[in-house]
Amino acid sequence: MARRRSTPLIRLSRDDSEPLYRQLRNGLVAAIEAGTLGPGDLLPSSRTLALELDVSRNTANLALQELVTEGFIQSIDRVGYVVSQEVGPFVQARREPPGIPIDWDVRFRHPTDPYPHMRKPPNWSDYAYPFVVGQPDPSLFPTRAWNRAGRAALDGENRSISLSDLIDQDDPLLTTLLCERILPARGISATPDQILVSLGSQQGLFLVAHALVGSSSRVGVEDPGYPDARHIFSRRRGTLRAMPIDDQGILVEGTTSGLDVVFVTPSHQYPTNVTLAVGRRQQLLTAAADDDFVVIEDDYDAEFRYQGQPTPALKAMDETGRVVYLGSFSKFLAPGLRLGYIVADAPLIEHLRDIRRYMLRHPAGLLQRTTALMIESGDYAASVRKTRIAVKDKWERASSGLATHLPEWNIPTQTGGLSIWVPGPSGFDATGLARLALGRGIVIEPGNVCFLNEPRPVNYFKLGFSGIAADSIEPGIAALATLIEDQT
Amino acid sequence: MARRRSTPLIRLSRDDSEPLYRQLRNGLVAAIEAGTLGPGDLLPSSRTLALELDVSRNTANLALQELVTEGFIQSIDRVGYVVSQEVGPFVQARREPPGIPIDWDVRFRHPTDPYPHMRKPPNWSDYAYPFVVGQPDPSLFPTRAWNRAGRAALDGENRSISLSDLIDQDDPLLTTLLCERILPARGISATPDQILVSLGSQQGLFLVAHALVGSSSRVGVEDPGYPDARHIFSRRRGTLRAMPIDDQGILVEGTTSGLDVVFVTPSHQYPTNVTLAVGRRQQLLTAAADDDFVVIEDDYDAEFRYQGQPTPALKAMDETGRVVYLGSFSKFLAPGLRLGYIVADAPLIEHLRDIRRYMLRHPAGLLQRTTALMIESGDYAASVRKTRIAVKDKWERASSGLATHLPEWNIPTQTGGLSIWVPGPSGFDATGLARLALGRGIVIEPGNVCFLNEPRPVNYFKLGFSGIAADSIEPGIAALATLIEDQT
Repeated sequence: MARRRSTPLIRLSRDDSEPLYRQLRNGLVAAIEAGTLGPGDLLPSSRTLALELDVSRNTANLALQELVTEGFIQSIDRVGYVVSQEVGPFVQARREPPGIPIDWDVRFRHPTDPYPHMRKPPNWSDYAYPFVVGQPDPSLFPTRAWNRAGRAALDGENRSISLSDLIDQDDPLLTTLLCERILPARGISATPDQILVSLGSQQGLFLVAHALVGSSSRVGVEDPGYPDARHIFSRRRGTLRAMPIDDQGILVEGTTSGLDVVFVTPSHQYPTNVTLAVGRRQQLLTAAADDDFVVIEDDYDAEFRYQGQPTPALKAMDETGRVVYLGSFSKFLAPGLRLGYIVADAPLIEHLRDIRRYMLRHPAGLLQRTTALMIESGDYAASVRKTRIAVKDKWERASSGLATHLPEWNIPTQTGGLSIWVPGPSGFDATGLARLALGRGIVIEPGNVCFLNEPRPVNYFKLGFSGIAADSIEPGIAALATLIEDQT
Repeated sequence: MARRRSTPLIRLSRDDSEPLYRQLRNGLVAAIEAGTLGPGDLLPSSRTLALELDVSRNTANLALQELVTEGFIQSIDRVGYVVSQEVGPFVQARREPPGIPIDWDVRFRHPTDPYPHMRKPPNWSDYAYPFVVGQPDPSLFPTRAWNRAGRAALDGENRSISLSDLIDQDDPLLTTLLCERILPARGISATPDQILVSLGSQQGLFLVAHALVGSSSRVGVEDPGYPDARHIFSRRRGTLRAMPIDDQGILVEGTTSGLDVVFVTPSHQYPTNVTLAVGRRQQLLTAAADDDFVVIEDDYDAEFRYQGQPTPALKAMDETGRVVYLGSFSKFLAPGLRLGYIVADAPLIEHLRDIRRYMLRHPAGLLQRTTALMIESGDYAASVRKTRIAVKDKWERASSGLATHLPEWNIPTQTGGLSIWVPGPSGFDATGLARLALGRGIVIEPGNVCFLNEPRPVNYFKLGFSGIAADSIEPGIAALATLIEDQT
C-alpha cells in the first residue's frame, strides 16, 4: 500500500445549496475518478481535512463516512482511510465503450404458444360505433358511491386493511360479504376459507392453471371458446382438447375421458351465449367424478340474462368439490378495477393462497375494502340493478337491430351476455368485414380467434353492446348491414 | 318417445311477487323433478296451458322458452315441447349420496420448495411494540391528497383509463411521469417502452423470474438475503447459489461463473442494510457482461438514507441493458396499494407485457391514474419528504435506543433502510427471544429465515421501525433489552 500524503484540490463554497460535507465528498470522488487518488492511497485524516479546508471535524467525518458507505474508501485500523482497491476498474471502465447489447430471445424460459390473440383497437372509444366486447360503459360506473366508499376505506378501522401489506390474506369483510350477499344469488353456499380474492377472473384462472396444469395435463376447452383461457393453459404446457358446443352448451358424452381439467362458461357460453342445459350440467358433474377431472367454471356475464332469471351456477350443484368457480366484479363495477374471486374447496384455496403470496401477495387492500363497503351499504346492489336495466335496453336494441337489418341471417336468439355471436352465411369473411368496418368507424370483433384448430371458420363475428352508447346501436348496425350488402 | 298428454298440477297466484310466467316455469320444473313429467314426455302446448291456467299465451310462451334455455325441455319440429332426455340423470342424481371428496394433493402441478417462510403476526398492529419489517405507518399516508387524486381519476378524460380493460397496456401518464419525475432521482434515464407497471416489486420479480428462469437456470442470491426472492426462483425450478455479503455488499469475485441471473438489493442490502460499494457495482456489471448473466436489482428502500444522499441505482451504471430494475410505490404511499414498476430493455419489457396479459392483464387503471395524478400535482413528492422526515426520526430513535440499551452488542451503523439488522452474540437464540417477546407485546423478526443454507444462524433478528409509533421505539427497545438480559 503506497502511503502517499495527498492534499486534493477541493474548493468548498459556503453559498452553495449543497451542504459542505457533500461538497467535500464530491471533491474527493472527483480526485479518485481523476486518478489523483489511486487504489490504496491514504487519505488525509479528518483533522487534517478540517484544518486545511476550514470546516468542522464533524463535516469532514460525515464526508469520509459517506465515502465508506459508498465503497470509495475503506477504514483500516491504526492506518486511516485508504482508497478502495476495487475502485480502479470502475474508474477505468467509465472510459471504455459501451458493451455489446444483450440478446434477450435466447434467454426466455417461458413458453409461448401458437394461438392467435384477441385484438381490439386500444382507442376503441374514439370510434363512432364501438361494438367491442368486454368493455364497460364508463357512464354507468357508480362514481359517487365509489368515492364515498373509497373515503370510508381510508378512515378509522378500515385504514389498516386498506394500506397494510396483508402478505397472503384478503380483506375479511369482503370474503364474508361474498359468502353472505353475493354468492347466494348464484346458488352457491360457501365459507370464507373457500374464497380467495383475485385480480379478476382471468388472474383467477391463471392461478388455478398454475396450481393444476402441468406438461402432463390434458385440458378440455369449449370450441369455439374463450381464447385467453387457451393461452393460459397452453403456457402451462397443458395439452388442449376441443369440446364442441351445440344449442345445449358443451358436449360432454364421449369427450371427457382422460382429461384432468375442463374449462367451461355455463351461464352464457363464450362466445355463443348458449346456456349450459341442466342435463348437460349433471352429465358434466357425473363425468367429472367418473373420469376424475376438475371443472373450472368461469361465471362469465352470469347476471346479464334478459329473459327469465339467471340460472344458478354450476358450482351450486357441486357435491364433491370438483368445481372451481371464478367470479368477477368487472361487469358491475369496472374491469379497470381488476377485482374478482375464486370459490373452491378449502385445501385448494390454501394452495392457491400460497402460490399467490409469491406471485403478487394480494389484490390491493384499498380496492377490496372499498368494494366491501359498497356491498355492505347496498350501493353495489343498486349499481347491479341500474346496470342491468341499462344493458337490457342495449341488448334489445342490438337484437332488434340485427333482426331488422340482417333478417335473412337468422341469428339465433341469445337471451344473455354482453355481446351477440353473429354467424354469417357460409363463405362469409367476417375478418375482412371487421377491417372494412373500422374505416367507417365501426368496431366489431372477428370470431375466428375463438376456434381452437385450423382452419378456423371466418364467417363469425362478435357484436358487443356494453361499451357503445345506446343511441348508436341501431344506426351502427344499419351502417354495418350496408357494408355487408356491399360485400356479399 | 311416449306421447302422453299431461296436465301438471300447477297453482298460480296473482298476489305473488314472482311473475306469472316464472311461477309457471317453477311448477313445470317441480313436475319434472318429481317425475310427473319424464324424459321424452310431451308438454301441453302454450295455447292449452294458457287456457287451462287462465294466463295469456305470451306468459305460457315465456315459461316454455325459459325451460328450453335452461335445457329442461326441447322444441321438436311439428311435435311441440318435450322433456329433455338428459334431464333424467339430473333428477336421479339429486337423490344419490354426495360423491367422494376430491384428493387435491395428488393434483398439484406447481412445485413447492423447502425454504422457510417469513412469518409475522397478522394482527401486528395490536401489539404495544410492533417492530415489524415492511409495514408502513398508516398515519403517514397522504389521505386527503389521495382522495383528491382518486376523485380526479374518475373525472372527465381520466375516466376511461381508470375504468376500462386496458388488456396489456398501462396508464401512459404514469409511465411518462416515471420517466420524467421518478427515475431521474435514481440516476436512471428510461423511455416509456422500457417500463412496465407491476403490482409491487414482488410481482415484478415474479414476472421477471417467469420470463428468465427455468429448470436449467442458475440463480445467484445474496446470503443472507430476501427470502421471498428465493421462493420465487426455486418455484421456477431454478438452482440457487449463495453469494456471501460483507461490509461492501455482495461478493462478486469468483462467485458468478455459470450463473444466468443474479438478484441483488444494492441500495440497502436486505437484510443487512449494507450499501453495495461502487467498486463492487462495477465488478458486478463487468462480470455480468463477461459471464453473460442478467442482474435483477430490487431497489429496496433506496430513498431511505439518513446520512448523505441516496446512492444512484445500479441500473444507472448499466450500459448493456443487463440490469432489470424493480421499483415500488409501497414505501411512500402504501404496500396495500400493490403498485410498482419494472425498468428494463424494451425487448424484455415487451415479453413481460405478453406474460402479464395472461397472468392478470394489468394493474388496476384506477390506482395507476390516481398515483400518476399524485405525482403530477407534487403531492407525491410532498409525501416523500414528509415520510422521510418521520422515518429518519424513527431511525434515530431506534439506532440510539439500541446503542443505549444493548451497548455491548456493537451493532454496525446502518445509515439506511426501514429496519436494523441486529447480530446477537454467537450462540444467542433470536428465535427464542422473538417468541418470548411476543408475550410481552414486542414483535421482532428472527433473521434465520434470511439464510439460504442449513444450519441457519439463529443469532440475528430484524428490528423494523416503520410501522411502530415513534414514541414506542425507545421503551420497546428497553423492554426488549431487559428480556435479553434475562435470557443471556
